[in-house]
Amino acid sequence: MLVAQPNETPIRVGLLGAGTVGSQTARLLVEQKDELAARIGRPIELVGVACLDPDEVNYPWIDKSLLTADTMKVATNADIVIELIGGTGVARTFVMAAIESGASVVTANKALLAKYGPEIYNAAAAKGVDIYFEAAVGGAIPFLLPLRESLAGDKVTSMLGIVNGTTNYILDEMTTKGLQFDDVLKDAQAKGYAEADPTGDIEGHDAANKAAIMATLGFHTNVTIDDVSVEGITKITADDIAAATAEHKVIKLLAVVENGEAGVSARVYPALIPETHPLASVHGSFNAIFVKAEAADDLMFYGRGAGGAPTASAVVGDVVTEARHIAQGCTGPTIPMYNDLPKAPIEASRAAFAVRFLIHDKPGVLAAIAKEFADNGVSINGVNQDLKPTMKEPGYDGELQQLRIVTHLTDEVTLRRTVEAVCKLDCVAGEPSILRVLD
Amino acid sequence: MLVAQPNETPIRVGLLGAGTVGSQTARLLVEQKDELAARIGRPIELVGVACLDPDEVNYPWIDKSLLTADTMKVATNADIVIELIGGTGVARTFVMAAIESGASVVTANKALLAKYGPEIYNAAAAKGVDIYFEAAVGGAIPFLLPLRESLAGDKVTSMLGIVNGTTNYILDEMTTKGLQFDDVLKDAQAKGYAEADPTGDIEGHDAANKAAIMATLGFHTNVTIDDVSVEGITKITADDIAAATAEHKVIKLLAVVENGEAGVSARVYPALIPETHPLASVHGSFNAIFVKAEAADDLMFYGRGAGGAPTASAVVGDVVTEARHIAQGCTGPTIPMYNDLPKAPIEASRAAFAVRFLIHDKPGVLAAIAKEFADNGVSINGVNQDLKPTMKEPGYDGELQQLRIVTHLTDEVTLRRTVEAVCKLDCVAGEPSILRVLD
Repeated sequence: MLVAQPNETPIRVGLLGAGTVGSQTARLLVEQKDELAARIGRPIELVGVACLDPDEVNYPWIDKSLLTADTMKVATNADIVIELIGGTGVARTFVMAAIESGASVVTANKALLAKYGPEIYNAAAAKGVDIYFEAAVGGAIPFLLPLRESLAGDKVTSMLGIVNGTTNYILDEMTTKGLQFDDVLKDAQAKGYAEADPTGDIEGHDAANKAAIMATLGFHTNVTIDDVSVEGITKITADDIAAATAEHKVIKLLAVVENGEAGVSARVYPALIPETHPLASVHGSFNAIFVKAEAADDLMFYGRGAGGAPTASAVVGDVVTEARHIAQGCTGPTIPMYNDLPKAPIEASRAAFAVRFLIHDKPGVLAAIAKEFADNGVSINGVNQDLKPTMKEPGYDGELQQLRIVTHLTDEVTLRRTVEAVCKLDCVAGEPSILRVLD
Repeated sequence: MLVAQPNETPIRVGLLGAGTVGSQTARLLVEQKDELAARIGRPIELVGVACLDPDEVNYPWIDKSLLTADTMKVATNADIVIELIGGTGVARTFVMAAIESGASVVTANKALLAKYGPEIYNAAAAKGVDIYFEAAVGGAIPFLLPLRESLAGDKVTSMLGIVNGTTNYILDEMTTKGLQFDDVLKDAQAKGYAEADPTGDIEGHDAANKAAIMATLGFHTNVTIDDVSVEGITKITADDIAAATAEHKVIKLLAVVENGEAGVSARVYPALIPETHPLASVHGSFNAIFVKAEAADDLMFYGRGAGGAPTASAVVGDVVTEARHIAQGCTGPTIPMYNDLPKAPIEASRAAFAVRFLIHDKPGVLAAIAKEFADNGVSINGVNQDLKPTMKEPGYDGELQQLRIVTHLTDEVTLRRTVEAVCKLDCVAGEPSILRVLD
């Protein structure tokens, strides 16, 4: 029987960054101090908060004497270092320095892990320290820990994530209010739901970072941001949404990672999913990750993907997990990448697609377009020309019509070649939109 | 830097029970042996499978020589003992014996933990061994580990769970097909979705076991099955469902645990929830737990609540977690019950209620019923008598009508007293149905 004397030496926590998430993280660590000590079995103590300008940081729960602009000092003088600086530049330097100093690291930095994850995981394993990053995917949602631990006895085959709140909010507003993309984006920027430069969100790059992390953890293989194919939501129109609604479907921007026969893949694309799919009811800025595993079957994890307090909840959860390990003198599971899986070639990705063309409505248009599909060997499942026109084209005195074609299963390369050929036809105008159709 | 020699001594796993879940658990342990060893850092070995009749158990992945009817021998000769016997009788004996022998325990036994949880948790903590039971609530859903670990830096304020697949399936069928409870139950029994004796499911006792476990883990206080108030779904009619649908609501049987000012409560009851609530889209036999936490805000965990392979996924996840601890010579977090919270008195539970009475439709009925509500101080929010009658009553030559009253917030004791008074009126017939109304 264990009758150890309680160890009252505090576990030292250093915090890099005192912005929205950093300040809330500090608040939880300070305000919940007693509860946390009870859960860990040892007290934890915030020993330093690195920020750009200590004079500008002013929270009642952060002792002024802890604030410093000497980030490296905080990064290398703690048992646990929390990195909330973001980006792939200095954050990498400080994380590597923290590991080298023997500290375990908790971070919310998806860009860093998507780019340098394997290097950082290996450095942590070699040094015998832990790295936790629950907040990097799905914000407050406890998802990576279950993936690393609970599903360790199962085989994950695929994951579909709504992992970017900004784009989910935009698509949701377009759906419920019938608005165009640009109008919703402006409104979202005015309300602070989208950043002044929204590119990283709307072009899918943020979701792509998360896809790389999901694939690495889920499939135990090395996947970085360079392996992720990305398509954003900027080409989606109110008419695409209306057509989806008419078919009892919704459009969501998904991070999709799969472990198939041809290898692993990680992609970000907008897709049509049935209204009855659990992901369809994920509204506004909420996030969710839908997991398919061999034994567990379907699982879904849902919650707030961003925000100061929600993200801080995940960060502090990681701190508690790690502090328990330190209190016990052990480490958590490493991030094994023992499956050196091949990356699936893009041709291996087969799906049904919904393509919307803008056309000059004159005789023979459908025949010409259908011929291109036939010539490329893409079988058509459905055609819909009964959508109201949305725009006039300069120099064309008729009205532009929309033609929507849904294909049977085909591979992406063939589909894109077909669409390219169709777009060269005289009768086709403007940019097509391409959506995958999921069951 | 840690450069430990890999320890190749297998971690010994004993399995008690070789039924639906037990056989699938054995399959995952045997078939995934190499993957599991890679994830754990040490091999694990199934060293015994206890079952009632070894001659009757025949799975290609279970070595016949492992089968034995000597349960105590398996329970006391392993590093990790998996208890899948069920019930609160011998299972308790074997679990306590396993702990006493120094083994850590993995179990899916919700009834055992709801009744003897605190005793078992304390025994494990005193012996310095772990107990994991992910499969006991929500089957395959990784929910208890996130609750124990990821939310350790947050404060959970309430949880609403759809934690019984049988009742969710029945309510779902009633909703989509407009059928009566009895008819759906018979059909569910015929299909094997409901047991021959469905009492434990339809009266809410199974969900109540889970509510006790959820409250203990979520609020760090001692809650057992005796603290849980329970109401099942047997009084819900097709007309209740139709009325809900007309108001864009669905009826779900919920396990609700709350940590409020008056103390903790754990209850099981059928409730009306809006169609837009994430729990409303949990269909068929799926389970989900919706969590509210101070910092993380709303979270939901969704997946298969039962079934051999899904439940085995959760069991093996626990085995891997525990095996890692053993490989490292440490233990997981104990189940702390440091919050000795009071149990909230039933009067503290305030809610809006929807009550449906069967009435003899004659002048003065509404006035008489409304007077009882007024005399008891219960404020009425809405009345609906526009529902078609469902039955004839012997000795009454008119038709029975339904009268549905939705109240403003009131406490449960007052509501039940009011309903009792109304039911004594001559004009009221049959059993009322009472549903809470959630936002």
